[in-house]
Amino acid sequence: MRFTGRLTLETSGHSHVLDITAAVMEQVQRSKIRDGLVCVFVPGSTAAITTTEAEPGLLNHDLRAFFDRVVPDDIPYRHEDTWSDDNGHSHVRASLVGPSVALPLIDGAIPLGKWQHVVLIDFDTRGRRRELIVQVVGE
Amino acid sequence: MRFTGRLTLETSGHSHVLDITAAVMEQVQRSKIRDGLVCVFVPGSTAAITTTEAEPGLLNHDLRAFFDRVVPDDIPYRHEDTWSDDNGHSHVRASLVGPSVALPLIDGAIPLGKWQHVVLIDFDTRGRRRELIVQVVGE
Amino acid sequence: MRFTGRLTLETSGHSHVLDITAAVMEQVQRSKIRDGLVCVFVPGSTAAITTTEAEPGLLNHDLRAFFDRVVPDDIPYRHEDTWSDDNGHSHVRASLVGPSVALPLIDGAIPLGKWQHVVLIDFDTRGRRRELIVQVVGE
Repeated sequence: MRFTGRLTLETSGHSHVLDITAAVMEQVQRSKIRDGLVCVFVPGSTAAITTTEAEPGLLNHDLRAFFDRVVPDDIPYRHEDTWSDDNGHSHVRASLVGPSVALPLIDGAIPLGKWQHVVLIDFDTRGRRRELIVQVVGE
Repeated sequence: MRFTGRLTLETSGHSHVLDITAAVMEQVQRSKIRDGLVCVFVPGSTAAITTTEAEPGLLNHDLRAFFDRVVPDDIPYRHEDTWSDDNGHSHVRASLVGPSVALPLIDGAIPLGKWQHVVLIDFDTRGRRRELIVQVVGE
Repeated sequence: MRFTGRLTLETSGHSHVLDITAAVMEQVQRSKIRDGLVCVFVPGSTAAITTTEAEPGLLNHDLRAFFDRVVPDDIPYRHEDTWSDDNGHSHVRASLVGPSVALPLIDGAIPLGKWQHVVLIDFDTRGRRRELIVQVVGE
């Protein structure tokens, strides 16, 4: 069996971290699949999927501060010459983290740690409407 | 067919890199599944899964030195204000690398490169007991 | 159903970014599988798979510039003492990005964003012949 769920999310960009765990689980439950694999995927090249603790310090500050320090937005990117835009850093950050996460599905649940949540990070330089895919395969 | 294997590992934290390839393969063999996908997943938000060469320079020094340089433990993290703890950097490192790796399973084997090993990295600031999931789907 | 496709690619190393989207899709079409999951995997510990916009600024400059800045090739790596080689940074970069990406397969297509392409990054310090795996499971 396989199932495709879709999530639509409004982001504010600028490394906005959104906790999508409950929305992902809702799609997994709709799938009626109990055991297998879940792939959470974001189409687009300026956003990424990972997991983190859903605590305001990390969600609203520490992750963004890391990316701002290590992939700054105020150094030259040739990408910005190509398009005369301003989001070269957004693309590099998204490629670094990656567009998807693969998760086990066991007896109808994803065995996340007690504090672990699935998150979308939108690295673009403006708010975006993102449509994510929750793909489930199994039985 | 689908199979759930579990690995229990004692780590020493502080970006401890543990080669889990043999333990993963043992679970894959127990699954009796010969062809499909394997997802190795660590529950928790201060550890990650990736692959690397299992050579002492990388395992015991170079990977940790990279994280110490790029995601230092001695800069302020708001996460630490929330909980009065000391592992803000552990969370950022874990989100960056990611909690799982998806691998092909072909004729009973994972086609890793000659020097490529599956590793758990425990970024927490103390030793932890980690229970990993080896999820297999296929035939 | 499951299918294993293989791609052979010649790289020039040194963080060479190769757009492999069309070659991945060719294997997916050969699989005759319409819905499920695709795992694109690179055997080896000095290369990685991710997605990015396939635009010359990013492909030929910005991604490499990021890695050169954050995981430099001219600082000491103990890996290089072990083997008397020069690719410690290649290993760290590859572990950071990861050896695979998991993607949904829906009605015969991978729902990539308009500008999003699947890429191999070869971080080794010489040109390499890489054999990638495109593993598909589904119906």
